[in-house]
Amino acid sequence: MSHEKYSKVIEVLHECMEACNHCYSSCLKEDDLAHMRDCVRLDRECADICANFEQALTQGTDFVKEYAQLCVAACRACGDECAKHDHDHCQKCADACKKCADECEKLIA
Amino acid sequence: MSHEKYSKVIEVLHECMEACNHCYSSCLKEDDLAHMRDCVRLDRECADICANFEQALTQGTDFVKEYAQLCVAACRACGDECAKHDHDHCQKCADACKKCADECEKLIA
Amino acid sequence: MSHEKYSKVIEVLHECMEACNHCYSSCLKEDDLAHMRDCVRLDRECADICANFEQALTQGTDFVKEYAQLCVAACRACGDECAKHDHDHCQKCADACKKCADECEKLIA
Amino acid sequence: MSHEKYSKVIEVLHECMEACNHCYSSCLKEDDLAHMRDCVRLDRECADICANFEQALTQGTDFVKEYAQLCVAACRACGDECAKHDHDHCQKCADACKKCADECEKLIA
Repeated sequence: MSHEKYSKVIEVLHECMEACNHCYSSCLKEDDLAHMRDCVRLDRECADICANFEQALTQGTDFVKEYAQLCVAACRACGDECAKHDHDHCQKCADACKKCADECEKLIA
Repeated sequence: MSHEKYSKVIEVLHECMEACNHCYSSCLKEDDLAHMRDCVRLDRECADICANFEQALTQGTDFVKEYAQLCVAACRACGDECAKHDHDHCQKCADACKKCADECEKLIA
Repeated sequence: MSHEKYSKVIEVLHECMEACNHCYSSCLKEDDLAHMRDCVRLDRECADICANFEQALTQGTDFVKEYAQLCVAACRACGDECAKHDHDHCQKCADACKKCADECEKLIA
Repeated sequence: MSHEKYSKVIEVLHECMEACNHCYSSCLKEDDLAHMRDCVRLDRECADICANFEQALTQGTDFVKEYAQLCVAACRACGDECAKHDHDHCQKCADACKKCADECEKLIA
Protein backbone atom coordinates (compact mmCIF):
# COMPACT_ATOMS: atom_id res chain seq x y z
CA MET A 1 0.00 0.00 0.00
CA SER A 2 1.21 3.46 -0.80
CA HIS A 3 2.70 6.18 1.31
CA GLU A 4 -0.01 8.56 0.03
CA LYS A 5 -2.74 6.29 1.34
CA TYR A 6 -1.52 6.92 4.86
CA SER A 7 -0.81 10.64 4.59
CA LYS A 8 -3.51 11.55 7.15
CA VAL A 9 -2.37 9.09 9.81
CA ILE A 10 1.29 10.00 9.20
CA GLU A 11 0.43 13.64 9.86
CA VAL A 12 -1.47 12.84 13.05
CA LEU A 13 1.26 10.49 14.31
CA HIS A 14 3.78 13.24 13.79
CA GLU A 15 1.72 15.81 15.69
CA CYS A 16 1.25 13.33 18.52
CA MET A 17 4.99 12.57 18.68
CA GLU A 18 5.76 16.29 18.90
CA ALA A 19 3.08 16.92 21.56
CA CYS A 20 4.30 13.96 23.66
CA ASN A 21 7.93 15.02 23.46
CA HIS A 22 7.04 18.62 24.31
CA CYS A 23 4.98 17.41 27.29
CA TYR A 24 7.83 15.10 28.34
CA SER A 25 10.48 17.82 28.39
CA SER A 26 8.06 20.31 30.00
CA CYS A 27 6.98 17.87 32.74
CA LEU A 28 10.64 17.32 33.65
CA LYS A 29 10.85 21.06 34.47
CA GLU A 30 7.64 21.25 36.54
CA ASP A 31 7.69 22.00 40.30
CA ASP A 32 5.24 19.18 40.93
CA LEU A 33 7.39 16.60 39.16
CA ALA A 34 6.55 14.02 41.83
CA HIS A 35 2.98 13.98 40.48
CA MET A 36 4.09 13.69 36.89
CA ARG A 37 5.96 10.36 37.02
CA ASP A 38 3.50 8.44 34.88
CA CYS A 39 3.08 11.38 32.54
CA VAL A 40 6.84 11.55 31.91
CA ARG A 41 7.10 7.82 31.32
CA LEU A 42 4.04 7.52 29.08
CA ASP A 43 4.85 10.67 27.10
CA ARG A 44 8.24 9.33 26.18
CA GLU A 45 7.05 5.86 25.31
CA CYS A 46 4.08 7.14 23.29
CA ALA A 47 6.38 9.48 21.36
CA ASP A 48 8.68 6.58 20.47
CA ILE A 49 5.82 4.36 19.35
CA CYS A 50 4.27 7.11 17.19
CA ALA A 51 7.67 7.92 15.64
CA ASN A 52 8.35 4.26 14.89
CA PHE A 53 4.92 3.75 13.35
CA GLU A 54 5.31 6.86 11.24
CA GLN A 55 8.72 5.64 10.00
CA ALA A 56 7.29 2.19 9.26
CA LEU A 57 4.42 3.65 7.23
CA THR A 58 6.78 5.71 5.10
CA GLN A 59 8.79 2.52 4.46
CA GLY A 60 5.79 0.51 3.31
CA THR A 61 5.43 -1.76 6.33
CA ASP A 62 3.34 -4.96 6.08
CA PHE A 63 2.38 -4.68 9.77
CA VAL A 64 -0.05 -1.78 9.76
CA LYS A 65 -2.67 -3.39 11.99
CA GLU A 66 -0.21 -4.60 14.60
CA TYR A 67 1.50 -1.22 14.76
CA ALA A 68 -1.89 0.50 14.94
CA GLN A 69 -2.94 -1.66 17.89
CA LEU A 70 0.26 -0.85 19.76
CA CYS A 71 -0.17 2.82 18.99
CA VAL A 72 -3.80 2.92 20.11
CA ALA A 73 -2.86 1.32 23.44
CA ALA A 74 -0.04 3.81 24.02
CA CYS A 75 -2.07 6.86 22.92
CA ARG A 76 -5.06 5.89 25.08
CA ALA A 77 -2.87 5.35 28.16
CA CYS A 78 -0.84 8.52 27.62
CA GLY A 79 -3.90 10.62 26.77
CA ASP A 80 -5.79 9.43 29.86
CA GLU A 81 -2.85 10.25 32.11
CA CYS A 82 -2.22 13.67 30.56
CA ALA A 83 -5.90 14.58 30.82
CA LYS A 84 -5.60 14.41 34.65
CA HIS A 85 -3.16 17.34 34.75
CA ASP A 86 -3.95 21.04 34.27
CA HIS A 87 -0.65 22.02 32.66
CA ASP A 88 -1.23 23.41 29.20
CA HIS A 89 1.30 20.97 27.69
CA CYS A 90 -0.57 18.05 29.30
CA GLN A 91 -3.95 19.18 27.98
CA LYS A 92 -2.55 19.65 24.48
CA CYS A 93 -0.88 16.26 24.64
CA ALA A 94 -4.11 14.62 25.78
CA ASP A 95 -5.87 16.09 22.74
CA ALA A 96 -3.14 14.95 20.33
CA CYS A 97 -3.17 11.44 21.83
CA LYS A 98 -6.94 11.14 21.52
CA LYS A 99 -6.86 12.33 17.90
CA CYS A 100 -4.06 9.89 17.08
CA ALA A 101 -5.75 6.93 18.79
CA ASP A 102 -8.99 7.66 16.90
CA GLU A 103 -7.14 7.79 13.58
CA CYS A 104 -5.18 4.60 14.30
CA GLU A 105 -8.37 2.76 15.22
CA LYS A 106 -9.62 3.29 11.68
CA LEU A 107 -6.68 1.18 10.47
CA ILE A 108 -7.68 -1.75 12.65
CA ALA A 109 -11.36 -1.94 11.73
CA MET B 1 6.91 -5.90 35.95
CA SER B 2 10.60 -6.27 36.33
CA HIS B 3 13.40 -6.33 33.83
CA GLU B 4 14.54 -9.69 35.26
CA LYS B 5 11.16 -11.25 34.50
CA TYR B 6 11.80 -10.70 30.82
CA SER B 7 15.47 -11.68 30.70
CA LYS B 8 14.84 -14.68 28.42
CA VAL B 9 12.78 -12.79 25.85
CA ILE B 10 15.23 -9.86 25.93
CA GLU B 11 18.05 -12.26 25.10
CA VAL B 12 16.12 -13.85 22.24
CA LEU B 13 15.03 -10.47 20.83
CA HIS B 14 18.63 -9.39 20.84
CA GLU B 15 19.82 -12.49 19.01
CA CYS B 16 17.06 -12.05 16.45
CA MET B 17 17.95 -8.39 15.89
CA GLU B 18 21.58 -9.33 15.30
CA ALA B 19 20.68 -12.20 12.94
CA CYS B 20 18.29 -9.98 10.96
CA ASN B 21 20.82 -7.17 10.61
CA HIS B 22 23.55 -9.60 9.61
CA CYS B 23 21.23 -11.15 7.01
CA TYR B 24 20.24 -7.67 5.79
CA SER B 25 23.81 -6.49 5.21
CA SER B 26 24.82 -9.88 3.72
CA CYS B 27 21.82 -9.98 1.34
CA LEU B 28 22.78 -6.53 0.02
CA LYS B 29 26.11 -8.04 -1.09
CA GLU B 30 24.69 -11.17 -2.78
CA ASP B 31 24.90 -11.73 -6.55
CA ASP B 32 21.26 -12.74 -6.67
CA LEU B 33 20.08 -9.56 -4.98
CA ALA B 34 17.09 -9.39 -7.32
CA HIS B 35 15.68 -12.46 -5.54
CA MET B 36 16.34 -11.06 -2.09
CA ARG B 37 14.12 -7.95 -2.19
CA ASP B 38 11.62 -9.16 0.36
CA CYS B 39 14.37 -10.63 2.51
CA VAL B 40 16.19 -7.29 2.67
CA ARG B 41 13.01 -5.38 3.50
CA LEU B 42 11.72 -7.83 6.11
CA ASP B 43 15.14 -8.34 7.74
CA ARG B 44 15.49 -4.64 8.33
CA GLU B 45 11.98 -4.12 9.61
CA CYS B 46 12.11 -7.18 11.87
CA ALA B 47 15.43 -5.99 13.32
CA ASP B 48 13.91 -2.60 14.15
CA ILE B 49 10.84 -4.12 15.78
CA CYS B 50 12.93 -6.53 17.89
CA ALA B 51 15.27 -3.72 18.94
CA ASN B 52 12.38 -1.45 19.88
CA PHE B 53 10.65 -4.18 21.87
CA GLU B 54 13.87 -5.02 23.66
CA GLN B 55 14.36 -1.36 24.57
CA ALA B 56 10.76 -1.08 25.75
CA LEU B 57 11.11 -4.13 27.99
CA THR B 58 14.22 -2.74 29.65
CA GLN B 59 12.28 0.50 30.28
CA GLY B 60 9.35 -1.23 31.94
CA THR B 61 6.77 -0.79 29.17
CA ASP B 62 3.06 -1.25 29.92
CA PHE B 63 2.45 -2.51 26.37
CA VAL B 64 4.02 -5.96 26.46
CA LYS B 65 1.18 -7.80 24.70
CA GLU B 66 0.82 -5.26 21.92
CA TYR B 67 4.57 -5.20 21.29
CA ALA B 68 4.66 -9.01 21.38
CA GLN B 69 1.90 -9.23 18.76
CA LEU B 70 3.75 -6.87 16.45
CA CYS B 71 6.97 -8.79 16.99
CA VAL B 72 5.37 -12.18 16.31
CA ALA B 73 3.93 -10.89 13.02
CA ALA B 74 7.29 -9.49 11.91
CA CYS B 75 9.29 -12.56 13.00
CA ARG B 76 6.88 -14.99 11.30
CA ALA B 77 6.96 -13.02 8.03
CA CYS B 78 10.74 -12.53 8.08
CA GLY B 79 11.44 -16.13 9.13
CA ASP B 80 9.16 -17.55 6.39
CA GLU B 81 10.89 -15.43 3.75
CA CYS B 82 14.42 -16.25 4.94
CA ALA B 83 13.63 -19.96 5.05
CA LYS B 84 13.13 -19.90 1.25
CA HIS B 85 16.79 -19.00 0.61
CA ASP B 86 19.83 -21.27 0.90
CA HIS B 87 22.31 -18.63 2.02
CA ASP B 88 23.74 -19.48 5.40
CA HIS B 89 22.79 -16.02 6.78
CA CYS B 90 19.19 -16.56 5.63
CA GLN B 91 18.94 -19.98 7.27
CA LYS B 92 20.38 -18.67 10.53
CA CYS B 93 18.03 -15.70 10.42
CA ALA B 94 15.04 -17.98 9.80
CA ASP B 95 15.99 -19.95 12.93
CA ALA B 96 16.42 -16.83 15.06
CA CYS B 97 13.08 -15.44 13.86
CA LYS B 98 11.25 -18.68 14.65
CA LYS B 99 12.79 -18.84 18.13
CA CYS B 100 11.89 -15.21 18.79
CA ALA B 101 8.31 -15.57 17.53
CA ASP B 102 7.82 -18.64 19.74
CA GLU B 103 9.13 -16.79 22.80
CA CYS B 104 7.01 -13.70 22.12
CA GLU B 105 3.90 -15.83 21.71
CA LYS B 106 4.26 -16.90 25.34
CA LEU B 107 3.79 -13.26 26.34
CA ILE B 108 0.46 -13.04 24.53
CA ALA B 109 -1.17 -16.18 25.89
CA MET C 1 17.08 25.49 23.97
CA SER C 2 13.54 25.50 22.70
CA HIS C 3 11.72 23.31 20.25
CA GLU C 4 10.69 26.47 18.33
CA LYS C 5 14.32 27.44 17.80
CA TYR C 6 14.79 24.31 15.73
CA SER C 7 11.53 24.37 13.80
CA LYS C 8 13.27 24.86 10.43
CA VAL C 9 15.75 22.01 10.85
CA ILE C 10 13.02 19.74 12.26
CA GLU C 11 10.96 20.37 9.10
CA VAL C 12 13.91 19.66 6.81
CA LEU C 13 14.90 16.50 8.74
CA HIS C 14 11.36 15.26 8.39
CA GLU C 15 11.26 15.87 4.64
CA CYS C 16 14.61 14.11 4.26
CA MET C 17 13.44 11.10 6.28
CA GLU C 18 10.34 10.80 4.08
CA ALA C 19 12.35 11.18 0.84
CA CYS C 20 14.90 8.57 1.98
CA ASN C 21 12.24 6.07 3.01
CA HIS C 22 10.33 6.60 -0.23
CA CYS C 23 13.56 6.09 -2.22
CA TYR C 24 14.38 3.00 -0.14
CA SER C 25 11.06 1.27 -0.77
CA SER C 26 11.06 2.35 -4.43
CA CYS C 27 14.63 1.11 -5.04
CA LEU C 28 13.66 -2.29 -3.66
CA LYS C 29 11.09 -2.56 -6.49
CA GLU C 30 13.41 -1.47 -9.32
CA ASP C 31 14.48 -3.84 -12.12
CA ASP C 32 18.09 -2.73 -11.77
CA LEU C 33 18.21 -3.50 -8.05
CA ALA C 34 21.74 -4.87 -8.43
CA HIS C 35 22.92 -1.30 -9.11
CA MET C 36 21.02 0.15 -6.19
CA ARG C 37 22.69 -1.72 -3.30
CA ASP C 38 24.39 1.30 -1.80
CA CYS C 39 21.35 3.45 -2.42
CA VAL C 40 19.11 1.04 -0.49
CA ARG C 41 21.55 0.81 2.39
CA LEU C 42 22.29 4.53 2.66
CA ASP C 43 18.64 5.57 2.19
CA ARG C 44 17.60 3.45 5.13
CA GLU C 45 20.40 4.52 7.40
CA CYS C 46 20.01 8.20 6.53
CA ALA C 47 16.27 7.97 7.22
CA ASP C 48 16.94 6.50 10.66
CA ILE C 49 19.52 9.14 11.55
CA CYS C 50 17.25 12.00 10.44
CA ALA C 51 14.31 10.52 12.36
CA ASN C 52 16.40 10.08 15.50
CA PHE C 53 17.78 13.61 15.31
CA GLU C 54 14.32 15.02 14.77
CA GLN C 55 13.04 13.13 17.82
CA ALA C 56 16.02 14.29 19.89
CA LEU C 57 15.42 17.95 18.96
CA THR C 58 11.77 17.76 19.98
CA GLN C 59 12.92 16.31 23.34
CA GLY C 60 15.40 19.09 24.03
CA THR C 61 18.62 17.15 23.46
CA ASP C 62 21.94 18.51 24.76
CA PHE C 63 23.81 16.90 21.87
CA VAL C 64 22.81 19.07 18.93
CA LYS C 65 26.28 19.43 17.42
CA GLU C 66 27.15 15.76 17.65
CA TYR C 67 23.81 14.74 16.13
CA ALA C 68 24.25 17.37 13.41
CA GLN C 69 27.70 16.01 12.50
CA LEU C 70 26.35 12.49 12.21
CA CYS C 71 23.43 13.73 10.13
CA VAL C 72 25.64 15.75 7.77
CA ALA C 73 27.85 12.70 7.15
CA ALA C 74 24.83 10.48 6.42
CA CYS C 75 23.05 13.06 4.24
CA ARG C 76 26.20 13.82 2.19
CA ALA C 77 26.88 10.11 1.59
CA CYS C 78 23.26 9.29 0.77
CA GLY C 79 22.78 12.38 -1.39
CA ASP C 80 25.97 11.68 -3.39
CA GLU C 81 24.89 8.09 -4.03
CA CYS C 82 21.31 9.01 -4.99
CA ALA C 83 22.56 11.72 -7.37
CA LYS C 84 24.21 8.99 -9.51
CA HIS C 85 20.86 7.40 -10.41
CA ASP C 86 18.25 8.72 -12.84
CA HIS C 87 15.19 7.37 -11.02
CA ASP C 88 12.91 10.21 -10.01
CA HIS C 89 12.85 9.01 -6.37
CA CYS C 90 16.67 9.05 -6.32
CA GLN C 91 16.88 12.58 -7.71
CA LYS C 92 14.31 13.84 -5.21
CA CYS C 93 16.13 12.09 -2.39
CA ALA C 94 19.45 13.62 -3.47
CA ASP C 95 17.85 17.07 -3.27
CA ALA C 96 16.32 16.44 0.15
CA CYS C 97 19.64 15.11 1.49
CA LYS C 98 21.57 18.12 0.22
CA LYS C 99 19.04 20.53 1.75
CA CYS C 100 19.16 18.67 5.05
CA ALA C 101 22.97 18.53 5.16
CA ASP C 102 23.18 22.26 4.46
CA GLU C 103 20.71 23.02 7.25
CA CYS C 104 22.47 20.74 9.73
CA GLU C 105 25.83 22.34 8.95
CA LYS C 106 24.48 25.63 10.27
CA LEU C 107 24.09 23.94 13.67
CA ILE C 108 27.76 22.97 13.77
CA ALA C 109 29.32 26.32 12.84
CA MET D 1 33.94 -3.57 8.20
CA SER D 2 32.67 -6.64 9.88
CA HIS D 3 30.24 -7.14 12.72
CA GLU D 4 32.89 -9.29 14.48
CA LYS D 5 35.36 -6.41 14.49
CA TYR D 6 33.00 -4.47 16.72
CA SER D 7 31.89 -7.26 19.03
CA LYS D 8 33.48 -5.66 22.11
CA VAL D 9 31.93 -2.23 21.61
CA ILE D 10 28.57 -3.80 20.73
CA GLU D 11 28.63 -5.66 24.04
CA VAL D 12 29.53 -2.54 26.01
CA LEU D 13 26.89 -0.43 24.22
CA HIS D 14 24.32 -3.03 25.10
CA GLU D 15 25.27 -3.10 28.78
CA CYS D 16 25.16 0.69 28.87
CA MET D 17 21.72 0.79 27.24
CA GLU D 18 20.41 -1.67 29.82
CA ALA D 19 21.99 0.20 32.76
CA CYS D 20 20.60 3.54 31.51
CA ASN D 21 17.10 2.17 31.02
CA HIS D 22 17.16 0.47 34.41
CA CYS D 23 18.32 3.74 36.02
CA TYR D 24 15.63 5.66 34.09
CA SER D 25 12.76 3.48 35.27
CA SER D 26 14.16 3.30 38.82
CA CYS D 27 14.64 7.08 39.07
CA LEU D 28 11.02 7.60 38.08
CA LYS D 29 10.03 5.63 41.22
CA GLU D 30 12.34 7.45 43.65
CA ASP D 31 11.01 9.65 46.48
CA ASP D 32 13.49 12.37 45.60
CA LEU D 33 12.41 12.51 41.97
CA ALA D 34 12.71 16.31 42.03
CA HIS D 35 16.51 15.88 42.28
CA MET D 36 16.64 13.31 39.51
CA ARG D 37 15.32 15.40 36.60
CA ASP D 38 18.57 15.50 34.67
CA CYS D 39 19.29 11.88 35.49
CA VAL D 40 15.94 10.77 34.03
CA ARG D 41 16.42 12.84 30.90
CA LEU D 42 20.03 11.86 30.27
CA ASP D 43 19.46 8.18 31.07
CA ARG D 44 16.76 7.94 28.46
CA GLU D 45 18.65 9.82 25.80
CA CYS D 46 21.88 7.93 26.43
CA ALA D 47 20.00 4.61 26.20
CA ASP D 48 18.55 5.60 22.84
CA ILE D 49 21.90 6.70 21.45
CA CYS D 50 23.64 3.50 22.60
CA ALA D 51 20.83 1.36 21.16
CA ASN D 52 20.95 3.19 17.84
CA PHE D 53 24.72 2.91 17.60
CA GLU D 54 24.58 -0.78 18.43
CA GLN D 55 21.98 -1.33 15.71
CA ALA D 56 24.02 0.66 13.22
CA LEU D 57 27.16 -1.38 13.94
CA THR D 58 25.31 -4.65 13.38
CA GLN D 59 24.09 -3.24 10.04
CA GLY D 60 27.57 -2.29 8.83
CA THR D 61 27.26 1.49 9.16
CA ASP D 62 29.75 3.76 7.35
CA PHE D 63 29.44 6.37 10.11
CA VAL D 64 31.31 4.75 12.98
CA LYS D 65 33.29 7.82 14.02
CA GLU D 66 30.35 10.19 13.97
CA TYR D 67 28.19 7.76 15.97
CA ALA D 68 31.07 7.21 18.40
CA GLN D 69 31.44 10.96 18.97
CA LEU D 70 27.74 11.32 19.70
CA CYS D 71 27.86 8.33 22.00
CA VAL D 72 30.90 9.59 23.92
CA ALA D 73 29.18 12.94 24.51
CA ALA D 74 26.00 11.27 25.77
CA CYS D 75 27.81 8.72 27.95
CA ARG D 76 30.07 11.37 29.53
CA ALA D 77 27.11 13.63 30.33
CA CYS D 78 24.94 10.81 31.64
CA GLY D 79 27.77 9.21 33.61
CA ASP D 80 28.74 12.52 35.24
CA GLU D 81 25.15 13.17 36.28
CA CYS D 82 24.57 9.65 37.62
CA ALA D 83 27.82 9.75 39.60
CA LYS D 84 26.34 12.58 41.73
CA HIS D 85 23.60 10.32 43.14
CA ASP D 86 23.97 7.59 45.77
CA HIS D 87 21.25 5.30 44.44
CA ASP D 88 22.68 1.94 43.50
CA HIS D 89 21.14 2.15 40.00
CA CYS D 90 22.79 5.54 39.48
CA GLN D 91 26.23 4.30 40.56
CA LYS D 92 25.95 1.26 38.31
CA CYS D 93 24.81 3.44 35.41
CA ALA D 94 27.73 5.83 35.97
CA ASP D 95 30.12 2.87 35.71
CA ALA D 96 28.48 1.53 32.55
CA CYS D 97 28.54 4.98 30.93
CA LYS D 98 32.23 5.49 31.73
CA LYS D 99 33.12 2.07 30.33
CA CYS D 100 31.10 2.72 27.18
CA ALA D 101 32.57 6.19 26.63
CA ASP D 102 36.10 4.80 27.02
CA GLU D 103 35.39 2.05 24.48
CA CYS D 104 33.78 4.45 22.00
CA GLU D 105 36.75 6.81 22.25
CA LYS D 106 38.96 4.06 20.85
CA LEU D 107 36.87 4.19 17.66
CA ILE D 108 37.54 7.89 17.19
CA ALA D 109 41.30 7.88 17.64
